[in-house]
Amino acid sequence: MSGWVTVAGLGPGAEDLVTPEVRAALEEATDIVGYIPYVARVPPREGLALHASDNRVELDRALQALEMAAEGRRVVIVSSGDPGVFAMASALFERLETAPEFADTDIRILPGITAMLAAAARAGAPLGHDFCAINLSDNLKPFDLIERRLRHAARGDFAMAFYNPRSKSRPHQFARVLDILREECEAGRIVLFARAVSTPEEKITVVPLSEARPEMADMRTVVLVGNTSTRRVGRWIYTPRGTVAAGTA
Amino acid sequence: MSGWVTVAGLGPGAEDLVTPEVRAALEEATDIVGYIPYVARVPPREGLALHASDNRVELDRALQALEMAAEGRRVVIVSSGDPGVFAMASALFERLETAPEFADTDIRILPGITAMLAAAARAGAPLGHDFCAINLSDNLKPFDLIERRLRHAARGDFAMAFYNPRSKSRPHQFARVLDILREECEAGRIVLFARAVSTPEEKITVVPLSEARPEMADMRTVVLVGNTSTRRVGRWIYTPRGTVAAGTA
Repeated sequence: MSGWVTVAGLGPGAEDLVTPEVRAALEEATDIVGYIPYVARVPPREGLALHASDNRVELDRALQALEMAAEGRRVVIVSSGDPGVFAMASALFERLETAPEFADTDIRILPGITAMLAAAARAGAPLGHDFCAINLSDNLKPFDLIERRLRHAARGDFAMAFYNPRSKSRPHQFARVLDILREECEAGRIVLFARAVSTPEEKITVVPLSEARPEMADMRTVVLVGNTSTRRVGRWIYTPRGTVAAGTA
Repeated sequence: MSGWVTVAGLGPGAEDLVTPEVRAALEEATDIVGYIPYVARVPPREGLALHASDNRVELDRALQALEMAAEGRRVVIVSSGDPGVFAMASALFERLETAPEFADTDIRILPGITAMLAAAARAGAPLGHDFCAINLSDNLKPFDLIERRLRHAARGDFAMAFYNPRSKSRPHQFARVLDILREECEAGRIVLFARAVSTPEEKITVVPLSEARPEMADMRTVVLVGNTSTRRVGRWIYTPRGTVAAGTA
């Protein structure tokens, strides 16, 4: 039997946001590989081996999956959200690039509901017009590049979604991000903190930029920032579809 | 019985990319509202009324849904992909803003797999680092704003995803977009045309920017542009997770 590696997105947390495609892959798998809390979301069953590892070992985990596939195993690497958005898909290809012996591995990437879209849906439609997604972790890139991207995103009047805004090892950095935004954007710009969306711990907080505080975010939070047109209607937040009056369209 | 309006994302086309949450909403609905090809994706059943309309009537469609909910009907507005990404969620709130009589409507937005993430998964992980999503239609915004966003996205070294790159009513505009990219980016920048992803008509084409041609895109195509680090590994395209060497991480 020939093995394979599938990188699957489990969505933000709720079971009814896992696609049938991903569910089918989990049912065919012999092995599940991934970060501890994501592997914990896969129901155990006989014949299924669970290989949970800590974070920051993404390349080791990718190699483990490629090695098991070469032995004929059916391996699913699980990611939260979508595997192609700041998750395991890139790490797999990064590892594959330096391991030509695995070049012929049967690989599939299965998309999932990424956190920013689940958060946006809960709040209304804050990403309803052009937007950027930025990973605020400087684990793998210098903060200067983050700052450059923030300024371009603001000057292009993009809405923004921030992943990994804050962690115990980077407590001060998100304060700098907010300072940069305050230099580039008006005080009333809408900022949305969405924690653990679609789980029992879900919490959504909406504030103007002037009232945004670093401690409103942690590693389970995705932060959305509106563009200059983003507004409230009742309890909802939305960004209009364009800047030209739509008439009856 | 109290009515409601749910805006649901059907994903890019394949049935196994429709979330169970969306499937359940479709099963509870009395009425489906949406653009003709999206309504056609909902299986007909007794007691379910299908209200298909042409495009460019998004605000009328939103009002129709709000009116039916007020009459106690359970209305699902269907969008392709994710309803919050260049789709019906914003149009609903835009209409709600000028119709205070519907302010108390029970509204839910259900996320879906948006086209750029399905396309990215098929190709590898081209959006594996910071990226922008830009709607290239100038139906509701001036082309100047599109140009400004393209230049900021390129100068911030974001990967990019373009929705609605080309239509019969705008045959020349995408050529201008490619010209702007050629001013801002190197000739070898990876460009990916993904048409009708996850359907029988799926077609993926990868070319360097120097070989990208306007006719490679139509309204069923999402176009992905890599950042300066995006590269090929075998048949895959991926964008590394960062710019700092990852070591064994």
